[in-house]
Amino acid sequence: MIRKLTILAVLLTTPMALRSAVAEAADRPPLHETYREAAARLTGAALQSRRAYDTLSELCDNHGHRLSGSARLERAIDWAVERLEADGFDAVWREGVMVPHWVRGRESARVLEPAEHELSILGLGGSVGTPPGGLEAEVVVVSGFDELDALGEAGVRGKIVLYDVPFTTYGETVRHRTAGPSRAARLGAVAALVRSVGPLSLDTPHTGATRYADDAPRIPAAAVSIENATMMHRMTDRGDVVRVHLEMGARTLPDALSHNVVADVRGSELPDEVVVVAGHFDSWDVGQGAQDDGAGCIIAWEAARLIAELDLRPRRTVRVVLYTNEENGLAGGRAYAEEHADELGDHVALIESDSGNGPAAGFRYHAPPVEPAGDSDRAREAADAVRAARTARAVALLREISPLLEPVGAPRIREGGSGADVGPSVRRGAPGLGLDHDTTKYFEIHHTHADTFEKIVKIDLDRNVAAMAIMALVLADMPERLIDPAADPQPTVSTAAERSSFSRR
Amino acid sequence: MIRKLTILAVLLTTPMALRSAVAEAADRPPLHETYREAAARLTGAALQSRRAYDTLSELCDNHGHRLSGSARLERAIDWAVERLEADGFDAVWREGVMVPHWVRGRESARVLEPAEHELSILGLGGSVGTPPGGLEAEVVVVSGFDELDALGEAGVRGKIVLYDVPFTTYGETVRHRTAGPSRAARLGAVAALVRSVGPLSLDTPHTGATRYADDAPRIPAAAVSIENATMMHRMTDRGDVVRVHLEMGARTLPDALSHNVVADVRGSELPDEVVVVAGHFDSWDVGQGAQDDGAGCIIAWEAARLIAELDLRPRRTVRVVLYTNEENGLAGGRAYAEEHADELGDHVALIESDSGNGPAAGFRYHAPPVEPAGDSDRAREAADAVRAARTARAVALLREISPLLEPVGAPRIREGGSGADVGPSVRRGAPGLGLDHDTTKYFEIHHTHADTFEKIVKIDLDRNVAAMAIMALVLADMPERLIDPAADPQPTVSTAAERSSFSRR
Repeated sequence: MIRKLTILAVLLTTPMALRSAVAEAADRPPLHETYREAAARLTGAALQSRRAYDTLSELCDNHGHRLSGSARLERAIDWAVERLEADGFDAVWREGVMVPHWVRGRESARVLEPAEHELSILGLGGSVGTPPGGLEAEVVVVSGFDELDALGEAGVRGKIVLYDVPFTTYGETVRHRTAGPSRAARLGAVAALVRSVGPLSLDTPHTGATRYADDAPRIPAAAVSIENATMMHRMTDRGDVVRVHLEMGARTLPDALSHNVVADVRGSELPDEVVVVAGHFDSWDVGQGAQDDGAGCIIAWEAARLIAELDLRPRRTVRVVLYTNEENGLAGGRAYAEEHADELGDHVALIESDSGNGPAAGFRYHAPPVEPAGDSDRAREAADAVRAARTARAVALLREISPLLEPVGAPRIREGGSGADVGPSVRRGAPGLGLDHDTTKYFEIHHTHADTFEKIVKIDLDRNVAAMAIMALVLADMPERLIDPAADPQPTVSTAAERSSFSRR
Repeated sequence: MIRKLTILAVLLTTPMALRSAVAEAADRPPLHETYREAAARLTGAALQSRRAYDTLSELCDNHGHRLSGSARLERAIDWAVERLEADGFDAVWREGVMVPHWVRGRESARVLEPAEHELSILGLGGSVGTPPGGLEAEVVVVSGFDELDALGEAGVRGKIVLYDVPFTTYGETVRHRTAGPSRAARLGAVAALVRSVGPLSLDTPHTGATRYADDAPRIPAAAVSIENATMMHRMTDRGDVVRVHLEMGARTLPDALSHNVVADVRGSELPDEVVVVAGHFDSWDVGQGAQDDGAGCIIAWEAARLIAELDLRPRRTVRVVLYTNEENGLAGGRAYAEEHADELGDHVALIESDSGNGPAAGFRYHAPPVEPAGDSDRAREAADAVRAARTARAVALLREISPLLEPVGAPRIREGGSGADVGPSVRRGAPGLGLDHDTTKYFEIHHTHADTFEKIVKIDLDRNVAAMAIMALVLADMPERLIDPAADPQPTVSTAAERSSFSRR
């Protein structure tokens, strides 16, 4: 899942010969000169190999899908640990995490009036179920929250609210899935249906998490296909009363033990300084979790493996983290940040790939917060200035690397989100990066039965591996760090910022 | 369904001023001059109206899907008769037809080894079911009949054969669905799975008829999604044994009574001479039958209605026929040809629309056969020559009309198939025409849950209505007929040709 893809600024790539101010001050050659040969070897190895493609294929076919709390996920984790060990990483281990354990159960929905139609639904992650035997109610269709509010309790109480909202961007449209059920419940709705959040449908329901508000009754919530949503909308537009029977066996069991998987290529000089390359290993309980986020896991894994295999021995440690429970809890990302809190000051970067396998155009830089020294406007302005200066320095360093990424199509450096799982570590002060995939096709299949391996384009996967490997290698080996603890005051995060970031999930 | 789209020749459209040899001999103006004003009125009325779009919407939402033998289809037929009567046709009636009554029942399939996966299947129309509780067997994957035959009985007996054949054209790929199950059964297979016949998939199974050979055991047969087929193929390529559990409740009940619906706009001078405009009213038991072939029915219906509404009063009768049972029997098309056998000599054309609602580029002309006067090569050559001369004359007349179709994008006239339902009438000597849709998007959704109304593009529907209306009007009013019984010997069809055409179904 992509969250918070709000792009703050687009920073163009640099001419080939450019040195950053950092490089000039240190009077060293630009990074793209120093690492050209290593980048060429990584690129050649990534593109000539079948390892990433075949490993992802095996993950998908033998261990897809992988919902948090399921035995399937834990079997997949066991497989990953075994395979990472066989791949010769210097250290491979699990870190236990308690995760939400939501199960879908049997579910079905059916239009009873004005004509019978089976509906294609997927209950939303976290939803409660219906009473046994289901529920039956009239459907009221709205095109958004304004229409819902205009109807008010008189128009909504006792009914099933259907949000028929056409896809624009994921971020804009998904609000109806996350907040829609509780907003309908506050007005007395007995259930909520949400038009699937995606641009294309062959009667394809998209699942995803919903988020119940504390002050609203918890009502069953499911996604319906675009075909179904528009049909019910036409029916009500025609003046017909639409009645639906909905049955969902969804329930939330006690939290279950899951694991983040961690694998290190140990640094040759500064092994305690770490570059994390990451994806999330869990998926929704449909399809194979091929692009959300099997691909990201394999991109990270294979990037680190190639660095080891080619014996490039960077000064710092390159660490693969396969996070658990991104989709419905983010417990893995939070647990890593907490477990490694004392080490995050030496996490020189955490790079996540979690927006499919479209060819990456570059990387997004996610600047960590800087805590104001006090509660005054002046203190906040000062903190903002420090953050801006640090960001400019980090982006300049990344732009020094980007000529090495141009041959694999990924030279673009811009500010933006990193990834949901590395987010908690970034909010505690570590620099974040996100592999910046082309998502044109991603939202057609993400969270659906169609997120399966055959849509993986091998050359795109290999290019993404190369881009990740080059970035990780340079960050792990270059003289400076993106944020330099010697030059800058060590950033810390305010309690308020941490709280607000959590509430955005 | 499109059958036999083999295009024999592409005949380019004519310059605007062209008169056919027929027109020159009769010293009359070209048809496109005579009917220009009428064509303009029909075009304007079709494109300004919501009737076609709204009627199709109502058909889909209130009466979709419509499988032969179902109460749903008969309710839809009742609705159509009522609405045609309300639309002011001069005569509206049903013609009873006994149709096959296949029911799907519950069906499911699941990979058990090497890993568990639910499969997305649709049993093939006409398939037998499995024993209660289903069957379980190893899967053998083939890329086509050559691979199947190379495996032979030793490789196939006791197994489930999966045809994983990538889509090229419908005609080429669909052979594995129609003939594949019996070819596998002859080698001892216990069931057949067929990769869905279509170019795009979001885990989308496509149903359609299969055809059991008389000399093979009848084994259960189902389509699986592209995602599922390629997954099982990868698994076997990897050397894993794939075991599948398949359960299908499909069965064939005794034939049921259904109906062709017929509605006439009576000719002002020659009411016994008839231009049929047609689609088929039945559909598979998934989706809404929106483009296969709800759209074709509404195109025919609305074309005739507009001719009546605009009071254009052609000399001959324009007749809407909504055929039943195209998908799994063609009983409607055969029954019409038999019931009206004595009148087919005065059917000046039968025009079918049955390839979706893509914008039509023109019409295909389907020349009826000419029976040789004897069994000699010379007699066959003479018959061929008569057929060629008649075809050239008919095509020349159609090319005289085509400038009127250019404003709605449909001027192309080429030889080809007409439509499955009008086929039996064409094989008995009546000229056939097929509305020649762009099918680029059609095979993505045809025979699937995704053949639903919201994919209907209104302007395309209205253009198709206008093209059908213009063609029907001119054929019903012009001085000559496409095949002229006065100038040519009346064609008859050989018993052998009739038999062979039936066996092609």
